[in-house]
Amino acid sequence: MEFFDVVRTRRSVRSYKPDVVPEEVLNRVLEAVRVAPSGSNRQPWRFIIVKDEAVKQRLVPACGGQRWLAEAPVVVVACGKVFDYNRGGYMGEHSMLVDVSIAMTHLILAARNEGLGTCWIGMFDNNEVKKILGIPEGWNVVGLTPLGYPKAGEKAFTEPGPRNKLSEIVSTDRF
Amino acid sequence: MEFFDVVRTRRSVRSYKPDVVPEEVLNRVLEAVRVAPSGSNRQPWRFIIVKDEAVKQRLVPACGGQRWLAEAPVVVVACGKVFDYNRGGYMGEHSMLVDVSIAMTHLILAARNEGLGTCWIGMFDNNEVKKILGIPEGWNVVGLTPLGYPKAGEKAFTEPGPRNKLSEIVSTDRF
Repeated sequence: MEFFDVVRTRRSVRSYKPDVVPEEVLNRVLEAVRVAPSGSNRQPWRFIIVKDEAVKQRLVPACGGQRWLAEAPVVVVACGKVFDYNRGGYMGEHSMLVDVSIAMTHLILAARNEGLGTCWIGMFDNNEVKKILGIPEGWNVVGLTPLGYPKAGEKAFTEPGPRNKLSEIVSTDRF
Repeated sequence: MEFFDVVRTRRSVRSYKPDVVPEEVLNRVLEAVRVAPSGSNRQPWRFIIVKDEAVKQRLVPACGGQRWLAEAPVVVVACGKVFDYNRGGYMGEHSMLVDVSIAMTHLILAARNEGLGTCWIGMFDNNEVKKILGIPEGWNVVGLTPLGYPKAGEKAFTEPGPRNKLSEIVSTDRF
């Protein structure tokens, strides 16, 4: 698809078909993640592809009971390696949130390009998800998303919801 | 451009032509920012478009003396509103780093789609940049980027630098 059409029609999808995501499609999405930029090219990320039904079900309560999460054939868990790069002089060991969010955004957009729905989940219990997936010390979960074909098909991809106007989020030379 | 070509050929550009970025091009890039997703659709961001030569020059020492930053006709400064959403139970008031990084990634990719170079700058002094641009308390700088046409033209956009293999960044069902 044209780049801008991807951006303009990406929506958070909360209802999925059980249809399997073909390996070659999944690999194209992951390739978009792989080439993402990061500070000093550190690539402080790891993406866990959860397909096992029992594991998916265990993730639901760790994500505030959002059951539709497990409807999708795949749940992706984006993990970041903790390091104290201290971007901007104030981020400390949270600096990796920036890098992992870049890579996750590549994933979300690449999925839309393949007709796959996603929904960035920010409400989760880091410690619980770490236990379920065996994520070691020194790593944290940055976000999760279901990945699958929307129940509504292409109709799931429409203009985004309400947004602030450009004049409200952009200024010139001063804040 | 096709979505995947944008992702695959986005490079950090550190040498710019002085040529002005036409308003309609800049607006298309900012529109991609505007529609970006964020937690609970909070849109906790503000983007400052720095065009004033004197202001650009003042940003150089606040970004570790990276002079090529000011070569570009525009420097974009991405700001985030501090709030304690505490994503994952550990991010605290750094949660906004995730949202602003999503929007900034939209900007970086949309710029490439328009033939514009960018370079995400993570080395900066938050307090200094805030002083220069009058950024109020309760907001922090998440990142900056020059925005302009690469001195090398389209040749600036090539395959990305070395990256880890998929097998090194992806696993199934467990970390």
